Formats: sequence, structure tokens, C-alpha cells
Amino acid sequence: MPEPLIAKHRLEALVDGVFAIAMTILVLEVKVPDLVDRRSTAELLHRLQHAWPTLAAYLLSFCLLGLFWFWHHRLMAKILRVDVPVFALTLWFLALVSFFPFAAALMGRYPVNPVALMIYLPTMGLLLTTQAANFALALHRGCVDPDIPQAEIFAAQRRNLRGCALFFLAAAPSAARIGPISLILCLLVAGAFFLLMRRYRTPKAAPAA
Amino acid sequence: MPEPLIAKHRLEALVDGVFAIAMTILVLEVKVPDLVDRRSTAELLHRLQHAWPTLAAYLLSFCLLGLFWFWHHRLMAKILRVDVPVFALTLWFLALVSFFPFAAALMGRYPVNPVALMIYLPTMGLLLTTQAANFALALHRGCVDPDIPQAEIFAAQRRNLRGCALFFLAAAPSAARIGPISLILCLLVAGAFFLLMRRYRTPKAAPAA
Amino acid sequence: MPEPLIAKHRLEALVDGVFAIAMTILVLEVKVPDLVDRRSTAELLHRLQHAWPTLAAYLLSFCLLGLFWFWHHRLMAKILRVDVPVFALTLWFLALVSFFPFAAALMGRYPVNPVALMIYLPTMGLLLTTQAANFALALHRGCVDPDIPQAEIFAAQRRNLRGCALFFLAAAPSAARIGPISLILCLLVAGAFFLLMRRYRTPKAAPAA
Amino acid sequence: MPEPLIAKHRLEALVDGVFAIAMTILVLEVKVPDLVDRRSTAELLHRLQHAWPTLAAYLLSFCLLGLFWFWHHRLMAKILRVDVPVFALTLWFLALVSFFPFAAALMGRYPVNPVALMIYLPTMGLLLTTQAANFALALHRGCVDPDIPQAEIFAAQRRNLRGCALFFLAAAPSAARIGPISLILCLLVAGAFFLLMRRYRTPKAAPAA
Repeated sequence: MPEPLIAKHRLEALVDGVFAIAMTILVLEVKVPDLVDRRSTAELLHRLQHAWPTLAAYLLSFCLLGLFWFWHHRLMAKILRVDVPVFALTLWFLALVSFFPFAAALMGRYPVNPVALMIYLPTMGLLLTTQAANFALALHRGCVDPDIPQAEIFAAQRRNLRGCALFFLAAAPSAARIGPISLILCLLVAGAFFLLMRRYRTPKAAPAA
Repeated sequence: MPEPLIAKHRLEALVDGVFAIAMTILVLEVKVPDLVDRRSTAELLHRLQHAWPTLAAYLLSFCLLGLFWFWHHRLMAKILRVDVPVFALTLWFLALVSFFPFAAALMGRYPVNPVALMIYLPTMGLLLTTQAANFALALHRGCVDPDIPQAEIFAAQRRNLRGCALFFLAAAPSAARIGPISLILCLLVAGAFFLLMRRYRTPKAAPAA
Repeated sequence: MPEPLIAKHRLEALVDGVFAIAMTILVLEVKVPDLVDRRSTAELLHRLQHAWPTLAAYLLSFCLLGLFWFWHHRLMAKILRVDVPVFALTLWFLALVSFFPFAAALMGRYPVNPVALMIYLPTMGLLLTTQAANFALALHRGCVDPDIPQAEIFAAQRRNLRGCALFFLAAAPSAARIGPISLILCLLVAGAFFLLMRRYRTPKAAPAA
Repeated sequence: MPEPLIAKHRLEALVDGVFAIAMTILVLEVKVPDLVDRRSTAELLHRLQHAWPTLAAYLLSFCLLGLFWFWHHRLMAKILRVDVPVFALTLWFLALVSFFPFAAALMGRYPVNPVALMIYLPTMGLLLTTQAANFALALHRGCVDPDIPQAEIFAAQRRNLRGCALFFLAAAPSAARIGPISLILCLLVAGAFFLLMRRYRTPKAAPAA
């Protein structure tokens, strides 16, 4: 019975809504400063200079959310139907997306504090991993459009896993700042993703299903 | 006259919007702490540890809202047209949805205070009850898709009522913490929902309308 | 040249988004109180009791926004195309909608202060008037679906004007609390709307265009 | 390979969402004042009088965002498909849109401070320039609907560039308040846009592609 399916257009509306709000909420962290002298150019400039890390974190996080949206959108375009497990993982993905502004705010306020990194990087890592896992789950559960040739599906999944692996490699120097265990963990996860990519090697001359 | 109907796609857009915002607003309650020493790892960790109840309440409430969205979406898929009474009850449902972040924030800030439970649990109970009532109303007013066999409709409504009954049973221990009257009320409501389920017993060999 | 038209589905998406956010933002005014003793039931109950006017203003304003959405949605269903002047008036309508949470917050915080009424009532009056004016403008500019019989269009417009007139009548006692000039103004506007209704009297046996 | 395209309806949903939220967030800056005497008409009126610049900035910025939405919507109607570079520039446009409420808040709080202008005007300038650049990019990359005659496309682009040029001319007096370099820069940019318009002069008797 194909009954417990979720209408794709409504899930997309929810996803687009959560992304749009998360992206706009990022900027709420950039606060209008309270000035002693309302007309003082020097004071306002000085106060806004302190807002630079927040602004940079805003722009970076906005672009990252945009990338995640793009990536999610590309994967959803390959999915024909959404069943309950895929929906549950998408919900967890959305929970991470709407948590992201908090991680970005922490990063913007305390850029030099390693704890901010300890929140920001794992949030991003989870976002990337969840996305790759969701596509693998959709593939496993037969939710992917059967008209798309398997070579293309596998190429998408390899791109997902490579993205995850490269992120964990890129995060290694930051992880090293937190501690040696973080660094080792980070490199192990990156290695695991590289290994996983082998599962999605394109079979030679795979006929389209 | 079939005139005073609401376009389903626009009501869905409103519902998806309210849900997306309520889900994203939940995290606004997780505040970035103000540190004395901006670089102190220990201080930031210590301050974030205090945010754990808030974070847990955020995740739980996000998942609950996701479940409510899923449930609402499943019922709406069975509804063919929306008339004014069904719209009015949907509006009341949305009012509860957008009130939910407040109840969740209260719960996250004061997890050990019984009053927070006294707000959180009834809000959830009302959400569940409203949803079940809305589907019963839609059924009563002929808004449900006549192509769906009655057995399936009745099964959906039994699931709705069982969900309500189980929620009130699960809430009983928490209700007991508030006082004996709450506990009795909670159990009576749960019983009432179990009794109501009998109204939607599938008639044997019901022909599809 | 029918070029400068706005795609209706995108304007609807914008309207639904602004309404969804305005409705959800209302509840942000209901603040989680700061307690001295985090476990004190009495203190939390006492603090929440002070939140009742805010809560009541929230629920009332939520319902009003829901009504405005419903009303707008009913009028938009009759409009076939949106041109620049209709869009401009819709934008002004949206500016009022997103200003509404501020008026509601003022009303919830200072329910006994006449100034709060002086903001809340005119905002509502402007919302109602804008809506009626927008439909009249769409009618005047030929944006209304020509397949709808004129009798039905005129009945909708009479309902719009009656709604405005009744609102200004209902607001008269509150206006009287502000001052005699407000009362007179309020009654004059109500009268003007009743007079305007005569313009939309259904012509006898109007043939459908 | 026409693969890396973005579904237009989903990008529109994201854009509409970001605009709706940015427009509604503008009003969050209009704060409900804290009164010493909750019933004092004089005190509340006095406090709200100070909110006038904020309110005026709110209305102006709401209308500007509405205009940007309208303009973006008109250009998107001419675009048939969205590829990665056009998406990237649209993302940057959205980052500016969601930054706009901060610039508006700064302007509303410190209308007499030249630094507020130094943030508000360049944000607007960047919004206008990005929009014109995005359409030029879409044109360059063959994303524009080939059924639209080139004369019409070129007219749209001339309107875009004229809009940018006129904005920088109109901003010149404000730029002069910041300093002579700003003024010169502003006039140079305006001139550059006027020169650029010549590139989009309609060729005589251009056949539709």
C-alpha cells in the first residue's frame, strides 16, 4: 500500500520556509548599538567595527545555508516520493537548519573561543552527514526516481560523500585547536566517508532501471 | 451554493508558513550567553551547560511540531474542500501551533516547575484534540474526499482518537505532579477518547460511497 | 499591452508569508518571566497572571489576522489579474498587516491606556478600508474575473463596505473614550461607508458579462 | 548537459519567504516602550513620538523592499531557467535583502548620524546593482526566455540600469554629507550606469531569436 507518503510539494514548502526564516534570522544577531551621543559618527563607527566578526559570521552562514538549500534541492529533484523514514530524517535535517543561526551567533560573538567552534563545526558536519544519509536512505527505500540512470544517482551520492569527507578534512585544523581527540575523530570520519564512496562506484555499463 | 470555500493550496501555504516559523522560532529561546572573559573556554562551556534543558526542550518541541505537521498534512490529503467551520477550527489549530514556542520556552527555562508543565501539556492536548475534532467536523460536513473508502476514513479517525487517548494517558504521571484533580481529569479525558473510538468502528463490508 | 502584470501565485505566496509571520510574531510579545526562585509554583503562576492581557490580545489579534487573511483570500479568488495599482495597494495592506503585531503588543501591554486604542483601532480601520478600496480599485481597473456575475461582485463589495461600517460603529464607544472628535470622526466614517454601499446596489436582472 | 538547473518555483518560494520575513522583521525594531505609569496617556504619547523616525524608516523600507520584490519578480518572469551562477547571484541578492532590516533599523534609530546613511545607501545601491547584474548575467548565459523579443529584454535592462543610475544621482546629496570622496564615487557610478545603458540600445529591426 503506497499510502503513508508525504506530498512532496508541501514538504518542499516547509523546507523552503524553514530555510528562508533561518537565513533571515541570522541577521537578527547583528544588533543596532546603543549610543551615548546619537549624532557621533566616531562612536557609531567604533561600535560597528566590533560588529565585524558578527557580520562576517552572518555572511558566511548565509552562504552556507544557501549552499545547503541548493544541495537539498538538487537531491529532492531526484526523489520521486517521500515516505515516513525519509520524512523523519528530513525533519532532523530541518532541526539542524533552524539550530544553525544559534551556532552562527555563538561563532559571531566569540570567534576566538574554541567552544564556539566546537558547536559550529559539528552542526555543519551533522548537516552534511544527514543530507548524504537521507539520500542513501531514499535510494535504499526505492524513493528515488527510477527514470534517472543509476550512474547519475551514484555520481550524486559520491559527490555527497566527497563533500562530507572534504568538510571533515577542512575542519581538521580547527579540530586540532580543540584537542587531539577531536583531530583524530575528524580524520577518522573523513576517512570513513572516503571509504564509503567506494560503495557507490559506477558499475560498468549499468542499464537504466 | 458551494461559494464560501477556501482554496486548499492557499490554506496549506498559510499552515506551512506558520509551522516553519514556529519551528524556527523555538531556537530563538536558546540565547547566546554574555561572557565576562570572551576567550574563556571554561566559562562558555559552563554557561552552555545551563542551556541543556532549553536545548532539549527545543529538540523535543521541534520533533513534536514536525509530528503535528505530518499528522495535519495526512488529514488534509483526505480533505477535498475547506469550508468556513473547518477553516475556523484550522485557524484555532494554528493559534495553538504559534503559541507552542512560548509553552516550549517556559518548559525549557523552568523544567522543574510544575506550572510550566501545566501550560505545556494542555497546549499539546488541545493541539491533538483540535486536530481530531477538525477531521470529525470535516467528515460531518462532507468535506472529505468521497473517493476514499469509509473504512480508511474511519481508521484515520480511530488513529486520531487513539493518539489523543494515549497522550492523555502518558500525561497522567505529569498531571499527578500538578495535583489529584489534574490526574483525574486527565484519565477521564483519556477514557472519553477511548469511548469515542467506538463511534468510528469500521462497519462490516461497507461499500465505498 | 498587458505586460506590467504580477503573477498572482507569487503575490499570494508573499501575502501568505507575511500573514504567517505576523500571526506567529504576535506570540513573541508573550515573554517568559524571569523568576527569583526557579521552582516556585506560586511565583510563576503570579507572573503568568500578569500575562493574561497580553495573551488575550494575542488570541484576539490572531483571530483578527485570520479573518483578514480569509477576507483577502476571498477577494483575491475573484481577481483574475493583478496590475501595478492593485499591487501597490496590496503592498500597503501588507505593511498594515506586518505593523499589526506592534499595535497588538501595545494593546496587550497597556490595555487600559487610551493611546494603545488610538493605535490599535485606526490600524484595524485602515486594514478594513484598504481591503474594500483594493477590491473597488480592481473592479474599476477591470482586474476582476469577468466570468463572475456582476450581482455577486456587487454583493461582495457591499459586504466589504458593511464590514467597514460596522467596525467603525463598533469602535465608536472606544473612540468616545479617546475624545469627542474621535467619536464624531468614527461615526462620520461609518455613515460614509453606509452611503457608499448604495453605489453597489445590484441592478435588476443584470446579465452576466 | 542541462542538469545543474534550479527549479524556478522553489527558488521563487525561497525568495518570497526571505522577502516576507525581511518585510515583517522591519517592524520588530518598533519597540513597545516601558512606561513608568501604565495608564498615563501623556507618557505613552511622548514615548511614541520618539518612535516616529523608526516608524517612518519602517514604512519607507517596507515600500522599498516591496519595490525590490516587484522588480525581482518582473525579471524572474522573463527568465526561463536558473543555472548555478544566476543562483549564486540571487543568493547574494537575498543576503542583501535580509541584511536590509538591520540597515533600516540603524537608519530609524540614528537618522541624523551620517554613519547610518553610510550603511543604508550602499546596501540599497548593492541591491539595485546586483539585480541589474543578475539580469545581465542571465541574458549572457542564455537563461532568458527566447520567446521574448530582444527589444523588450533590452528595454528591461535599460530600465534596470537607469534605475541604478538615478538612485546614485539621488543619493549624491546624502553622499556629500558623508564626504567629498563619497560624492565623487557616487557620481562616477551613476555615470558608469548611464554609459552601460548604451550597450543595451535596441538594434533596429532585431528579429526575435
